[in-house]
Amino acid sequence: MSTAGRTTDRTTWDELMVARAYLASVIEPPAPALVRFIGRHGAQRAAELVRAGDTPEKVTEEVESRREHVSGEKALEQARESGARLIVPEQPEWPHERFSCFSDATEVGFADMAEPIALWARGTASLGEALERSVAIVGARAASGYGETLAAEFGYGLSDAGFTVASGAAYGIDGAAHRGALATGESTVAYLACGVDRDYPAGHSRLLRAVAERGLVVSEYAPGASPRRHRFLVRNRLIAASGQGAVVVEAGVRSGASNTASTADTLGRPVMAVPGPVTSASSVGCHMMIRSGKAMLVTRTEEVIEVISPIGEAPAVDAAGPARKSDGLDRYAKQLHDALTGSDGSSAEQLARDSGLSLRKVRSLLPALEMAGLATLGEDGWVKNSSNKPR
Amino acid sequence: MSTAGRTTDRTTWDELMVARAYLASVIEPPAPALVRFIGRHGAQRAAELVRAGDTPEKVTEEVESRREHVSGEKALEQARESGARLIVPEQPEWPHERFSCFSDATEVGFADMAEPIALWARGTASLGEALERSVAIVGARAASGYGETLAAEFGYGLSDAGFTVASGAAYGIDGAAHRGALATGESTVAYLACGVDRDYPAGHSRLLRAVAERGLVVSEYAPGASPRRHRFLVRNRLIAASGQGAVVVEAGVRSGASNTASTADTLGRPVMAVPGPVTSASSVGCHMMIRSGKAMLVTRTEEVIEVISPIGEAPAVDAAGPARKSDGLDRYAKQLHDALTGSDGSSAEQLARDSGLSLRKVRSLLPALEMAGLATLGEDGWVKNSSNKPR
Repeated sequence: MSTAGRTTDRTTWDELMVARAYLASVIEPPAPALVRFIGRHGAQRAAELVRAGDTPEKVTEEVESRREHVSGEKALEQARESGARLIVPEQPEWPHERFSCFSDATEVGFADMAEPIALWARGTASLGEALERSVAIVGARAASGYGETLAAEFGYGLSDAGFTVASGAAYGIDGAAHRGALATGESTVAYLACGVDRDYPAGHSRLLRAVAERGLVVSEYAPGASPRRHRFLVRNRLIAASGQGAVVVEAGVRSGASNTASTADTLGRPVMAVPGPVTSASSVGCHMMIRSGKAMLVTRTEEVIEVISPIGEAPAVDAAGPARKSDGLDRYAKQLHDALTGSDGSSAEQLARDSGLSLRKVRSLLPALEMAGLATLGEDGWVKNSSNKPR
Repeated sequence: MSTAGRTTDRTTWDELMVARAYLASVIEPPAPALVRFIGRHGAQRAAELVRAGDTPEKVTEEVESRREHVSGEKALEQARESGARLIVPEQPEWPHERFSCFSDATEVGFADMAEPIALWARGTASLGEALERSVAIVGARAASGYGETLAAEFGYGLSDAGFTVASGAAYGIDGAAHRGALATGESTVAYLACGVDRDYPAGHSRLLRAVAERGLVVSEYAPGASPRRHRFLVRNRLIAASGQGAVVVEAGVRSGASNTASTADTLGRPVMAVPGPVTSASSVGCHMMIRSGKAMLVTRTEEVIEVISPIGEAPAVDAAGPARKSDGLDRYAKQLHDALTGSDGSSAEQLARDSGLSLRKVRSLLPALEMAGLATLGEDGWVKNSSNKPR
């Protein structure tokens, strides 16, 4: 980095922040060429070169239209005024572990998956710590009551199990997931497609305030930036990267949630989808993802944790209830058990005829049924025991 | 076959039916050793040898307890009295194509998958013809309204598309599937776990009558046989084999439907399951099957047909609705489209700054947006067109 002539660390740090703020504002994310350029030169030198117009062609393409029109100082000033701060990769709170997927993806040709140059944030929580154990929960804006209830339950359950919920603060599933997470008193992270000083959507201003108090409201768009359609898609990669896996609670056929899901898949994150009634339009996207193998079907928090946990670390999931005593019997023992009656006693010969089993087989099986508590030899012969519940 | 000394074909045929009726009654199905024994000796000779007690040990095990207590003539007489008939493998209506899966499965060691020795039937339809194109629909007895509605819809839709619905006539999903199929006026096949002369379950006696009128009520248990728990499981293999694929509409954690599903899988039939609300206990089994990869998720009749049809024969399924004009745009065109406003005209320079794209890129993209009907050059500059619906 070009630190020659700087007098104190403080000055250097401030200049780094100004440089990152400038670089983050000069492009419309994602900007893969500029990210690589910064990697080569460091943020401060890269900012100087961009300002001077001294950049390779691909970088020039990304920066030329705004390089003379934006200012890092002004962006930082505007952030301070709105109570926001800048998080940069040079800080320890940058979620390196989660965001390493971006360089992996760009290296194999997914240019749209470039790492953010910096992130603006409302809230004092550490982004890196929040995302240490985390799950992205996304879904339709036009969610059903069923979907919102489930999103809140997954949000609560995962938060309660120690996972930070990352989502997009939209109406419907996103909002319900954040609310569910907030109900545990733990942090949650909301990524916006506009400046963090703008309450978008407007009806979620209280929710966003609550998120910023406990966790973080984050954006790669500078304060003042307006939400635009394509920015939601670009923003989705941050949500996808921020979770160890992504859960889609409800999604229509064409939806932002499906986009986040495929982005998560591109970034190497397991994608999960919650099924719903096949008669519900808001579950169509989830069912399509499961059908095509893009998403795993999940129905409960425990199943999500099982998917995102390293093998052996999550408790095994077993949805089966208590068995009947007769469940463990083999075919012949079941056949014999069915031939017994609860009232009249039967001889072994009668049981053989009735069950179709050989007399030898019947004689060998009866003691086993008795041991299992399923048959008793009474005065009139063998009878079936009434209770078939496990002891 | 041992036909020496027989005078007419008629006599031979009658004797064959008596032999099959005897062999079918002497065992408690499935009876893999006896099936092999019949394959070696023919039904009439096999019946003579069984009656005489002259059988290999494995066959003896299967027949010894009843061989002196049952009569083929009596079974046929009882069937005639109750309006039932016997279908045997020697008849052209035997569904050889569907049932060939049984010998395939027993050959690789699934002894419980032995072919039935004969089938008792109420109804005049040809079983073989009915099962030429067919789907098994199964599910929980304790079905929800959601499940029953869907079972009826799948039953109707598949029947309407020319597929015979095979099921078990139980309360809940089975009954609804049969009813849905009957509503098209086409045939449906119900397999019972007791004699076909018994209306089981009792509340479905009218349904069973309707099934027998249009299609067939079938059982491998002789008239008079009572339903027993293990017989439902044994019967399930006939339902599973009878469809080109099996659809589970609703299933609890431990259910007969899950058993039919794994049997279908054993027999090489594709298994499909319909998802439902994760809050519904009657969908838990379906979700488990989908999660474990045992079943494919299906939501509509068309998807079932796609699964069971030879590749290329089913119409492709596409659940996506009409697209927006802007859906086909690449990332940069979308970015530019988002920077346009519907009211004030913008210059190319303004659009470059606003979108973050280079001026050259903006100039090259604007004509494309105009061609796509998404932008217009007015007196004050470029404006966004209001309609984004496909033409």
